[in-house]
Amino acid sequence: IMGKRNIFVNNMELSEAQELWRNKLKAENCLECDLTEMVEVQYGLGRITAEPVFARCSSPAYNGSAMDGIAVRFEDTLGASEVNPVTLKLHDEYVPVNTGNAIPPGFNAVIMIEEVQPRGDSHVEIIAAVGPYNHIRTIGEDIVVTELLVAEGHVIRPIDQGAMLATNVTSVKVRRPPTALVIPTGSDLIMPGEPVKPGDIVEFNSVVLAGYMNEWGAQADRYPAVNDEPDDIRAAILHGVKNYDMVVINAGASAGSRDYTAQVLAEVGEVLVHGVAIKPGKPVILAIVEGKPVIGLPGYPVSAVLTMRLFVRPLISMFLGREVEEVQTTTATLSRPLVSRMGVTDFVRVKLGRVAGKLMATPSGRGAGAVMSLVQADGILKVASGSQGIGAGEKVEVELLRDLHEVDNTLVFIGSHDNILDVLANLLHQRQPICRLSSAHVGSMGGILALKRGEAHVAGCHLLDDETGEYNVPFIKRLLGDTPLQLINLAQREQGLLVPKGNPKNIQGFKDLTDGEISFINRQRGAGTRLLTDMKLKELGLDPETVRGYEREEYTHMNVASAVAGGSADTGLAIRAAAVALDLDFIPVAKERYDLIIPAIHADDPKVLALLAAIRTNKQFATTVENLGGYDLCDSGLVMYEQ
Amino acid sequence: IMGKRNIFVNNMELSEAQELWRNKLKAENCLECDLTEMVEVQYGLGRITAEPVFARCSSPAYNGSAMDGIAVRFEDTLGASEVNPVTLKLHDEYVPVNTGNAIPPGFNAVIMIEEVQPRGDSHVEIIAAVGPYNHIRTIGEDIVVTELLVAEGHVIRPIDQGAMLATNVTSVKVRRPPTALVIPTGSDLIMPGEPVKPGDIVEFNSVVLAGYMNEWGAQADRYPAVNDEPDDIRAAILHGVKNYDMVVINAGASAGSRDYTAQVLAEVGEVLVHGVAIKPGKPVILAIVEGKPVIGLPGYPVSAVLTMRLFVRPLISMFLGREVEEVQTTTATLSRPLVSRMGVTDFVRVKLGRVAGKLMATPSGRGAGAVMSLVQADGILKVASGSQGIGAGEKVEVELLRDLHEVDNTLVFIGSHDNILDVLANLLHQRQPICRLSSAHVGSMGGILALKRGEAHVAGCHLLDDETGEYNVPFIKRLLGDTPLQLINLAQREQGLLVPKGNPKNIQGFKDLTDGEISFINRQRGAGTRLLTDMKLKELGLDPETVRGYEREEYTHMNVASAVAGGSADTGLAIRAAAVALDLDFIPVAKERYDLIIPAIHADDPKVLALLAAIRTNKQFATTVENLGGYDLCDSGLVMYEQ
Repeated sequence: IMGKRNIFVNNMELSEAQELWRNKLKAENCLECDLTEMVEVQYGLGRITAEPVFARCSSPAYNGSAMDGIAVRFEDTLGASEVNPVTLKLHDEYVPVNTGNAIPPGFNAVIMIEEVQPRGDSHVEIIAAVGPYNHIRTIGEDIVVTELLVAEGHVIRPIDQGAMLATNVTSVKVRRPPTALVIPTGSDLIMPGEPVKPGDIVEFNSVVLAGYMNEWGAQADRYPAVNDEPDDIRAAILHGVKNYDMVVINAGASAGSRDYTAQVLAEVGEVLVHGVAIKPGKPVILAIVEGKPVIGLPGYPVSAVLTMRLFVRPLISMFLGREVEEVQTTTATLSRPLVSRMGVTDFVRVKLGRVAGKLMATPSGRGAGAVMSLVQADGILKVASGSQGIGAGEKVEVELLRDLHEVDNTLVFIGSHDNILDVLANLLHQRQPICRLSSAHVGSMGGILALKRGEAHVAGCHLLDDETGEYNVPFIKRLLGDTPLQLINLAQREQGLLVPKGNPKNIQGFKDLTDGEISFINRQRGAGTRLLTDMKLKELGLDPETVRGYEREEYTHMNVASAVAGGSADTGLAIRAAAVALDLDFIPVAKERYDLIIPAIHADDPKVLALLAAIRTNKQFATTVENLGGYDLCDSGLVMYEQ
Repeated sequence: IMGKRNIFVNNMELSEAQELWRNKLKAENCLECDLTEMVEVQYGLGRITAEPVFARCSSPAYNGSAMDGIAVRFEDTLGASEVNPVTLKLHDEYVPVNTGNAIPPGFNAVIMIEEVQPRGDSHVEIIAAVGPYNHIRTIGEDIVVTELLVAEGHVIRPIDQGAMLATNVTSVKVRRPPTALVIPTGSDLIMPGEPVKPGDIVEFNSVVLAGYMNEWGAQADRYPAVNDEPDDIRAAILHGVKNYDMVVINAGASAGSRDYTAQVLAEVGEVLVHGVAIKPGKPVILAIVEGKPVIGLPGYPVSAVLTMRLFVRPLISMFLGREVEEVQTTTATLSRPLVSRMGVTDFVRVKLGRVAGKLMATPSGRGAGAVMSLVQADGILKVASGSQGIGAGEKVEVELLRDLHEVDNTLVFIGSHDNILDVLANLLHQRQPICRLSSAHVGSMGGILALKRGEAHVAGCHLLDDETGEYNVPFIKRLLGDTPLQLINLAQREQGLLVPKGNPKNIQGFKDLTDGEISFINRQRGAGTRLLTDMKLKELGLDPETVRGYEREEYTHMNVASAVAGGSADTGLAIRAAAVALDLDFIPVAKERYDLIIPAIHADDPKVLALLAAIRTNKQFATTVENLGGYDLCDSGLVMYEQ
């Protein structure tokens, strides 16, 4: 009988929490369940035997003919030759047999049909003697009953299934994965596919969590979403520990007014840890209920996944009696500085890219709710609790989320956002599944600077030079003057003000943005679109300070469009494709040139060549881009400038 | 409309058949089926997308609080500081919100609960201003509707499922495997587990064939066994081509009196090839019926599997649009000569073993019915049609059936058969799953010669020297005089005459074997047990010629026991364990010493150490061996002799 103490630890060190968890699970024999099960052999492909498998009958199980021919007594054939053929009489001295037929009693050899001459209806002639058991497959010739077929710990292959079934082994004891129940909690949860009202949260975490657990070797079921009511949560947990080897609850792990998980766990079991000094994932709960491990995970998907990797993956490995699964890691160079808080172990999603032989790691989004940042991440960088951060250019050890081979085949694009990048990413992957386009949207200027630092294969930019009215080239000359490169047009595109359908506030242009009523949403500094905004305001002699919302920044055209569509801003400057995508009205402001900068050292890279081939020769490219709206491909693929 | 010619080719060259098949399938557009299907995202883990997947709604879908706290208007907070705190009024100026709650209309920022001081029931005080949309997760912050989530050709991971479900993508078009129907035919087929009467054939081939097809990327269903009736076979084939992408029929491919497959295929479609110059597998049929590929496989399991590898595996790869699956091969040295017939491409099962750094390939059983030989095979050696054979010591290219790493971790045992070898094979694998014991039973003398040629790590022998009465040592001195080695006892064991339960013919000893009534089954030349037989006959002054069945040889104790149990022999000499296993009576003849010979160069090999550890220190070993019957382990593990 276990005590039900509630050790509430606010901020335990990661290593301390992991050790406490591991030791307690062992001390309480939480991992000692019977991880075997019987399966029918016909469904056993790929399973691992949990005991040696022995033949339960012999194969063949009877003396049978190995040929189509006649069964004879070998004694009757002695002396037969071409000169002295021997004649045999049907039934008395021979019986016709097909392959697989049982040898009739009294007979002890078979002669192939090809070596037999019929002599009338009831006699045959043979011209050679045969030995005893000639062409007979004797009992156990292949396998004798009780013989070992496969050893314990063997991965069952099709031929092993054959050997088992042939010897009357129809079911086999195999290892079974530890079972887990994933319990999603939250009164605001709705099922995927249901219409989302404000405040509703789509319950997809349980699919993600169960999926990872299955990939790590467990077999996870999902419980229906549970309301934030202690009684309901308690019932779900008790169901879980009764029927599964482990339980994962998501979420209710925090200290909010509706977070009952820790309280309920302390009532029905023992909470070992609540709160670990990690980011994201701090409010994790580690508990034992009725001898079963129960983990309370934070609610944000990224926090939940990263916490799972720290506490659930090793748990599954312990159940399976494996050494903790070796994680694949690689060494990379950090491309920009990373700040971290002392006393907290940070887990940072990074994108990886090998550019000119050097593997660069770039931190991507850190928001705990950002599912897409984890979709796009190539690795996880752990920043130790004692560190305040890591400088740009430092070597870091990254845990891989993708095969390094795939990372090596990633085309690194940095620069301005455009919807065509999605089209290219898809075309590249479609044509060569191993080849990926990884794009970071840091604005046109950011792209040029990334090329300068050698961090990208290609940059995208649309920078209009105020003085010359020329696109991109003046900036390249100024910032990349020494770098041999080509400037290749991707597309010309329309920029304009996005407004809700029907333009309810009757916005006609930038001049309308300073009346104090209209809220604007801006792009970040360094974005070509930001520069266009500033130029237009300057042309009109308008002070940015008077534009309401000028200080609110988004990083992509689509996020600007989303803010307008969602009503948090009245208008923003973006490309027409974003207006088309979100069904907004569009007030044209400018037509501009969006070019790709490709340094000469990457010009022959197969990934770059694949990218250019997609732009220049793929019909699907042109069709798809034209459907996005607002693009002119007349110069697409042409070299605009070279140095 | 296709012609229904029946091109009966008796013995087509393999490469010609493969090319004809490939070209015809392309010409007839047999591979042009739609290999996509919709799956629910929640069941899509590990599937490959067949089209790019775009967000169907934004995530978040509404502006929501990122924190537990209060929703405010940022304008109301301007100027707040520790010196000049700002007081806000419930409902009018603030509303409490939990993480995930929708921001009420009119509010545009969130302040964390930790930074709010309650002032009575309806007011709070704040000491810092906040910016617009502070701590608000805005619509599309993570993903904007229409954005690309994953490209075509992407293997779906749990986090991808999350991104899809979060953006209202609940089903996804994925690639589907080509489907196949496996049709077993034969009026003599019974289901696994049913009692086997003489002439019955257990239907396990369809499980094996479907299993391999699934491993190669198809999805194979099994049809119930079909009688050898043309109408039934025709109906099954027509069902198959109507509902599946390809059909495999097993068997009826030969030219026997019940082999209707080719005839039926020629009626309903076109037979391209019937008969290929390969061994095993010659009677294979390649046909096209209603635009679908149909393959008729030979009936013997080994023939069927090897034929599948030649014609079905490439077919699946063609369906999947892959280059033909690259097979893993390795170069090895052939340990004994291999004879092959000119004009036939031979596929020979081989065992592989790395001994003292050299990878040796040893041909194993060649019988088409020998399932166990395929279970135990490590590779397949192709002997070209133009070759008459390969000499011992020649380098050969072997297609691997096991990972080379596993082969490298195989302990190669050659020598006399003993039932304890099964026990050791299991213990070794159980303790270290990568470690395997591969044993070839070629008799005691064969084991010594294999050590002499450097083809084994360990040999097992029980050779009694006629003159000295000493076991093994005189033979070692004579044949392995120069080799430093240890002789370690495995067990002492009882040899005796095996007779059916109750000893119906009242056999008392070797003296009874010459009465002409009693049939004997012998062991092969070079076996220690054969020597013991000869010695006993000599002691009694009996002429082997007078022993009926003296010339009939088996290779293991178990096969001798099986012949006695099955009634094809009245008695044979074997160890007591074989009598116990098959429930036979046992007439003791001798107690003998079975030893392991371990050359000094292998003494420190981890596999050898693991073997000795199992013998010397594993309690399970002693218990299991004692249960086999007839063993004395008093000297087990002791060094009997060293040189």
